[in-house]
Amino acid sequence: MPETVPPTEHTRVVREPQRGVYDRETIYKILDEGFVCHVGFSVDGQPYVIPTLFGRVGDAIYFHGSAASRMLRNLSEGISVCVTVTLTDGFVLARSVFNHSMNYRSVVALGKATRVDAPQEQLEALHAFTEKILPGRWYEARQPNEQELKATSILRLPLTEVSAKVRTGPPIDDDTDYALPVWAGVIPVRLAFDVPVRDERCDASIPAPAYAAHYRR
Amino acid sequence: MPETVPPTEHTRVVREPQRGVYDRETIYKILDEGFVCHVGFSVDGQPYVIPTLFGRVGDAIYFHGSAASRMLRNLSEGISVCVTVTLTDGFVLARSVFNHSMNYRSVVALGKATRVDAPQEQLEALHAFTEKILPGRWYEARQPNEQELKATSILRLPLTEVSAKVRTGPPIDDDTDYALPVWAGVIPVRLAFDVPVRDERCDASIPAPAYAAHYRR
Repeated sequence: MPETVPPTEHTRVVREPQRGVYDRETIYKILDEGFVCHVGFSVDGQPYVIPTLFGRVGDAIYFHGSAASRMLRNLSEGISVCVTVTLTDGFVLARSVFNHSMNYRSVVALGKATRVDAPQEQLEALHAFTEKILPGRWYEARQPNEQELKATSILRLPLTEVSAKVRTGPPIDDDTDYALPVWAGVIPVRLAFDVPVRDERCDASIPAPAYAAHYRR
Repeated sequence: MPETVPPTEHTRVVREPQRGVYDRETIYKILDEGFVCHVGFSVDGQPYVIPTLFGRVGDAIYFHGSAASRMLRNLSEGISVCVTVTLTDGFVLARSVFNHSMNYRSVVALGKATRVDAPQEQLEALHAFTEKILPGRWYEARQPNEQELKATSILRLPLTEVSAKVRTGPPIDDDTDYALPVWAGVIPVRLAFDVPVRDERCDASIPAPAYAAHYRR
C-alpha cells in the first residue's frame, strides 16, 4: 500500500480542510490507539451506527459485526459501511463561544465489509482485538474453540478509502477577541484506568496480571 | 413524552436483548454524560459516520451538523440519521478469550434531523452544548453574534425512536471455565481531565476559572 492515501470525493476533508490527514502512518497510529469504533450501515434507507470493538491487522480492520452481519446473510459481495474511530484529546476554550472546539483525532474508513469465515483469519482478528487491548492476555486466557469461532461474527474492511482529521493546539479566536479578559486554553482529556475489580468468583490466590494491575495504553 | 419508549423494529436490542433499556430517565442520563456523538447518514447508498458535539434540550438532541447539513440543502423534510452516544466503563476480562467484553452504556436515536434556523433555538442549542461541557462558561465568554449564528449549522433530532444498551458487572464465563487458574474481573475505564493549558496569548493575570482548573464530569 502507498504511504499516502489519495483522498477521494468521499474521504477528502471538506470542512476545515487544514485538519485533513492522509498519511497512512498517522491514520494507523490513531486506529491502534482506539479500541471502540462506530460502524455505520444502512438498511432500507435507515442509517444505523453501532459501537463495537475492533483491531487492525496490516491494511485492514476487523470488527465484531453481530448487528451488521444480520444484513450480510445474503450479501456475499459485502455491505457498504463507514467505520469511524474518534479519540478526544481536549476541550478548547476560546474567548468567544463560537470558537470553542475539541482537540481530537478521528479516522473515517469507507468501503465494503465482508464476513470473515476462515477460522485462521478469525483467530488472527480475535488475537488482534485482544492483544491490542490487553497485551499478553491471549496466552493466559482459554483460547477460542471451534464452536466459539463459529458463533463469532467478524467483519473485515480493507483500508483503501480512509482519511483522518486532527485538531490540536490552542483556541483560534477572532483578532478583536484576544483583548477580552477571558481565560482561554485547553483542558486535556484522556482515558484513565482504575484499580482492577476482581470477579467475586476469582480465587484470591490468583494475582492480578501486570497488564490489569497497572493498565496503560 | 411517556417515561418508557416502546422499542420499534429499529430500536429493539436484538443481540443480547437483556442489555436493552427503554426508560427515558436512563437514556437521558447517558446522553447527558456524553458530549461527543457519532452521526450516521447515507448519501447515494454510502453511509457516513461523523463525530460531533451535541447537547440535549428536553426531548430532542441538537448537534453540530456541518457534514450532514451539506446534504440538507434541498431537503426541507430533513435527513434520516442515526445518532449514537457511547460511554466506555470497563474492560471485562473473562477466563476465556471468547467471553471478554466491555462494560459500556450506549444510546441509539433514529429519525429525521432538521436544520435549526431560528436564532433563538440556535442560541438555546449552543447554550446546551456549552453549559453541559463547561457550566458557567456561557456567561464568561463572548456570546454568539448574528453573523456567527448564521454560520452555525445545528441539526435537531427529536428523541422519539431511541433505546439504550448497557453492560455492567463481572465477566460471565462458561461453567466449566470457572475452575481455570486465570485472573478474571474488570478494569474500570473513565475519562480524566488534566491541568488546563493556558493559551500563550492569554494574559497570566487572568485566573483559570474553577470549571477549568478542577474539571469534573
